Amino acid sequence: MSFNTFGRVFRFTTWGESHGPALGAVVDGCPPEITLTEADIQPWLDKRRPGTSRFTTQRREPDAVRILSGTFEGRTTGTPISLQIENIDQRSKDYSEVAQAYRPGHADYAYDAKYGFRDYRGGGRSSARETAARVAAGAVARAVIPGVRIRAWVEAIGGDSIDPAAFDDAQIDANPFFCPDAAAAARWEEKVDAARKAGSSLGAIVSCEATGVPAGWGAPLYAKLDSELAAAIMSINAVKGVEIGDGFAAAALSGEENADRMRPGADGPTFLANHAGGIAGGIATGQPIRVRAAFKPTSSILTPVETITRTGDAAEIATRGRHDPCVGIRGVPVVEAMVALVLADQFLLHRAQCR
Amino acid sequence: MSFNTFGRVFRFTTWGESHGPALGAVVDGCPPEITLTEADIQPWLDKRRPGTSRFTTQRREPDAVRILSGTFEGRTTGTPISLQIENIDQRSKDYSEVAQAYRPGHADYAYDAKYGFRDYRGGGRSSARETAARVAAGAVARAVIPGVRIRAWVEAIGGDSIDPAAFDDAQIDANPFFCPDAAAAARWEEKVDAARKAGSSLGAIVSCEATGVPAGWGAPLYAKLDSELAAAIMSINAVKGVEIGDGFAAAALSGEENADRMRPGADGPTFLANHAGGIAGGIATGQPIRVRAAFKPTSSILTPVETITRTGDAAEIATRGRHDPCVGIRGVPVVEAMVALVLADQFLLHRAQCR
Amino acid sequence: MSFNTFGRVFRFTTWGESHGPALGAVVDGCPPEITLTEADIQPWLDKRRPGTSRFTTQRREPDAVRILSGTFEGRTTGTPISLQIENIDQRSKDYSEVAQAYRPGHADYAYDAKYGFRDYRGGGRSSARETAARVAAGAVARAVIPGVRIRAWVEAIGGDSIDPAAFDDAQIDANPFFCPDAAAAARWEEKVDAARKAGSSLGAIVSCEATGVPAGWGAPLYAKLDSELAAAIMSINAVKGVEIGDGFAAAALSGEENADRMRPGADGPTFLANHAGGIAGGIATGQPIRVRAAFKPTSSILTPVETITRTGDAAEIATRGRHDPCVGIRGVPVVEAMVALVLADQFLLHRAQCR
Amino acid sequence: MSFNTFGRVFRFTTWGESHGPALGAVVDGCPPEITLTEADIQPWLDKRRPGTSRFTTQRREPDAVRILSGTFEGRTTGTPISLQIENIDQRSKDYSEVAQAYRPGHADYAYDAKYGFRDYRGGGRSSARETAARVAAGAVARAVIPGVRIRAWVEAIGGDSIDPAAFDDAQIDANPFFCPDAAAAARWEEKVDAARKAGSSLGAIVSCEATGVPAGWGAPLYAKLDSELAAAIMSINAVKGVEIGDGFAAAALSGEENADRMRPGADGPTFLANHAGGIAGGIATGQPIRVRAAFKPTSSILTPVETITRTGDAAEIATRGRHDPCVGIRGVPVVEAMVALVLADQFLLHRAQCR
Repeated sequence: MSFNTFGRVFRFTTWGESHGPALGAVVDGCPPEITLTEADIQPWLDKRRPGTSRFTTQRREPDAVRILSGTFEGRTTGTPISLQIENIDQRSKDYSEVAQAYRPGHADYAYDAKYGFRDYRGGGRSSARETAARVAAGAVARAVIPGVRIRAWVEAIGGDSIDPAAFDDAQIDANPFFCPDAAAAARWEEKVDAARKAGSSLGAIVSCEATGVPAGWGAPLYAKLDSELAAAIMSINAVKGVEIGDGFAAAALSGEENADRMRPGADGPTFLANHAGGIAGGIATGQPIRVRAAFKPTSSILTPVETITRTGDAAEIATRGRHDPCVGIRGVPVVEAMVALVLADQFLLHRAQCR
Repeated sequence: MSFNTFGRVFRFTTWGESHGPALGAVVDGCPPEITLTEADIQPWLDKRRPGTSRFTTQRREPDAVRILSGTFEGRTTGTPISLQIENIDQRSKDYSEVAQAYRPGHADYAYDAKYGFRDYRGGGRSSARETAARVAAGAVARAVIPGVRIRAWVEAIGGDSIDPAAFDDAQIDANPFFCPDAAAAARWEEKVDAARKAGSSLGAIVSCEATGVPAGWGAPLYAKLDSELAAAIMSINAVKGVEIGDGFAAAALSGEENADRMRPGADGPTFLANHAGGIAGGIATGQPIRVRAAFKPTSSILTPVETITRTGDAAEIATRGRHDPCVGIRGVPVVEAMVALVLADQFLLHRAQCR
Repeated sequence: MSFNTFGRVFRFTTWGESHGPALGAVVDGCPPEITLTEADIQPWLDKRRPGTSRFTTQRREPDAVRILSGTFEGRTTGTPISLQIENIDQRSKDYSEVAQAYRPGHADYAYDAKYGFRDYRGGGRSSARETAARVAAGAVARAVIPGVRIRAWVEAIGGDSIDPAAFDDAQIDANPFFCPDAAAAARWEEKVDAARKAGSSLGAIVSCEATGVPAGWGAPLYAKLDSELAAAIMSINAVKGVEIGDGFAAAALSGEENADRMRPGADGPTFLANHAGGIAGGIATGQPIRVRAAFKPTSSILTPVETITRTGDAAEIATRGRHDPCVGIRGVPVVEAMVALVLADQFLLHRAQCR
Repeated sequence: MSFNTFGRVFRFTTWGESHGPALGAVVDGCPPEITLTEADIQPWLDKRRPGTSRFTTQRREPDAVRILSGTFEGRTTGTPISLQIENIDQRSKDYSEVAQAYRPGHADYAYDAKYGFRDYRGGGRSSARETAARVAAGAVARAVIPGVRIRAWVEAIGGDSIDPAAFDDAQIDANPFFCPDAAAAARWEEKVDAARKAGSSLGAIVSCEATGVPAGWGAPLYAKLDSELAAAIMSINAVKGVEIGDGFAAAALSGEENADRMRPGADGPTFLANHAGGIAGGIATGQPIRVRAAFKPTSSILTPVETITRTGDAAEIATRGRHDPCVGIRGVPVVEAMVALVLADQFLLHRAQCR
């Protein structure tokens, strides 16, 4: 079944294809009386917008969001919020070859195997263009949890990582890579340019931190905060791995090393470390929530690769058209949006059960 | 909200605490006319059962499952299947100290922060004992998808990995570590013994492969097969990371390296690689599904660590009682169960929408 | 929580207010490869359209539906189908009085009590205008279950019932009341006209029959076919009662009278009666599904009635503006749509669990 | 799909068959720190217990409930509450004939049509015995909304109604019919006795009122309070009709008659009438919630009736075994339980979205 709704009580449903007339999200369950206009949403979409630097796809989409329902006189009414973004710059002619042959790494073959049929234009529903709707919905989520600050950045591109010691929050918005390390950003400029020129692509790691999440949010056992975050992040196009806190590195630690010791603090415990990434037993501890996501390299590459056609014949395919050389970069606002959406949902769940 | 149900149409709900009278699962949505008796479930529980070697907790639980509903004359009827396991070997006296102070790394503090109150005996609901119910439910899931083979193993303990070249499927059940590499198993024996004797603990990485999953299973966009697997695996106690296919390693690859090329095959494509771990666009490609999980070291350690009490005072706590020195080992049947549960659900979802 | 999604696997979400720019539905879970264009949906909307006779509201809305996603080359793709209808003929000035005082029978006071705030224009979200989105979604549902014929009619207006002996299917679309009894239709013309001229309103009873539903559809126990139908019908504006089969009349029968005897038939049993309305134990028996709905009189009336203002003061209010004198009439296509939506969902659920 | 879970955030799942070893409910989402022991649940089960008078089935079940999880030291912990009731007095031999032939009015044929196979003993899962689990869960729901008083009674049996003017709350628990009118109770004694002796059965109407529900509870549009109540009530065995407020009678009223006029009150409006049954636009108005349910006569009768066998041959069947001559009587605590369960859920939903 095609489940295009996410969330338990703060829920959003997205719709739309890469080359259809529009795409959108319906946000349901938003509390009333929250200030919300297009101006609260647009900046987040602008952050994700294509065509803003040579390191992202050259598709030109204004991505102007319209609120079609759910607000009145600039405030939410508690009814569903319909958000809509028109597709402007489709060039469907670019994708004629894709209609016949499957692009390795893309969802082409899988969609045909499932549905027997697909909208092949720009990847149809499986296109990362859908993430614009998530980012719009995420902006509503942020408005629901104003005390929470969510901040993501790129930590590595093509295996080249930032220097944690050089982390500078102010840098993140100062370069086209959302990179907190100016030196790394300079290296990546060269690296991504080279990939772009070669028609190749690069993977990336995105890190995200949410501060201001009160201890207690989380819904054990099968809507655990970390479980929901994992589902949310893994549902993003191209993501192949998710970590909470130390993630895979924790598997190499001893219990003594991994223990986040506590001391009496002003308001709850002061933790001496945060290996857990702010979550224990699926519930927030009050420490910063730390999440990491691995983005595979964009599957669209110019190098011709072996594949098969719809009729099962051997073929070669090179993906022309406009693509991000490193889809992880524009993944930054999407990761933030998904984290916001999970946290807004968990906030409402928490106050349902626990006041 | 306390969401203790997992799944969309093949759903299970678990209940029970570590030191309550019993625990169980209710499996709902199971198709009718499937052969199912306790004998089909017990072997999987036995695989997870504590006290079978010195490398697991010494709590002695027979973990005998009873089917209380949903079958008739040895076959499922399509109605809810209630599975129940009694707790026999609780020793609640071991946990008196835990009532007052929070064990770092455990859910103690988070549960109190959320609920204002907790069943501290053996971790209560947050205990890994709950995973017995998952394994029982997972056995039902396996019966729903008999063509799928699900196999997990331990890939690394405390940072010491198996040699992929030495992988031997037959070894997995031949040692107490579910280790496919005999040499690694020998090393781990020493390593885990040392940790156990020192009252310390170790993390682990568990790998799982599911073969026989037909191309087409998966429910994009927010019940994607990989998203559901991520949620399922991350909901397991102590798991801090999940990977599909190459996972984080994919972030260091180029598009050319990562492309799973296809050639015409007898029945669908023959793939030349499986970086994707058998999933594209959230839909199975027909290749083996590959999932990895990072287990942190058991948080219960004998070394006294700084913490605070319920009333906010400074304290030290050492976790006495019986524990797994490496919780990842017994995580193997749990990972398998969760993968089975996701796949059974996706199978039913697929035939709902696509026949 | 504002739950604006209905259905288990065939799900739809509606959004939109009476006087917003547009309203719509997102249909999720629709099987692929079903022929679907605007032309398949529009006739059902036309049936519900306001302003078609003097017996319905004089608001003039073309109610032209647009499909914004989920189809490709005239067929469904298995991805979410976004349906949108623009609001054209809002006259928001009609509702200024409503902003300050609560109309008895309307949702005004309840919405304010819940949300602290409301879009008062035309009833905002609580307006029956939302049912246009249901009818659009229902047209998609019909396409999913082409073997099922769903037919509703008005059975009584203001306490004046049709003569069952005069039932003529051909009459239903031959008068503005969806009335299968020509004589009753003639009486109602006078009756509704009188109410309209007096600024009064009338209640109605709508009956619906679905034939061609195979024995076996239904999802016991809490998604029983009759339970889902009851929820669906009761969610329609102004509905205050739902019956399946004989409904309340069954409470006066003896067991012998109520038994639907069976004889061997060509394909399953031949039933000698259908007191059950085609459903037993929450599962379809293969007989026609029979549902009845009671619509209260439209709450909008010209007679001034006692009420209070937002600030709690005494007031009188008469509802000016354009309204249906008998909202049950236009309820006919809405009841049909809801029945179609439930049946499409149950069809998919059935084939998920039972093939 | 077999959906045996009800509720959005306060959810319960039931399991068990009439003649299995036990049946039960798992209540999930209950807030923590609520006083709850078996003694809080048992009285409600006792009210529904069979064998307490000659007007109910002679099956003797103590229906002793056990809480197996979710409480600690007499208070809820916020984790799932597993409630279990053993079946003691099964006499499966009574049902051998039912294995081969379908009882008209029962779910026998429908279950076979759906599942191809059924547990025929006592109706298996379709038996009203399952409602014991609902009543147990309902007792937990009551504890969640202590300010709400829920009270049901029998309003008519076999077409013989109480005199509303004779309504006496104190009478309801003073006779075996939950009848608020002593004179009617006397008549019913004769009537039900006659039916019982004749091996016949009678239908009934049950009325329920919930007071103390604050204005604002309700979750429009598809989890409207009335819609949820309709689903809940219609899911009860033998129920064929549901009304809110005036129900079908409202269809005969004019808008002037139906308007619930308001005057300024101490705390919100004072309503001059309650045709709406306490719900407008799917949201509680603060007036008493009024619900009515029509129960068909018990389908088990001694008179042999025409039917068919599993293999499609003609047959006659008379239902021996122990049955309620009027299943509506024991429906009273079940209706109350379902109303409580819906209200507890709506309470939590409301505070999730609206504080």
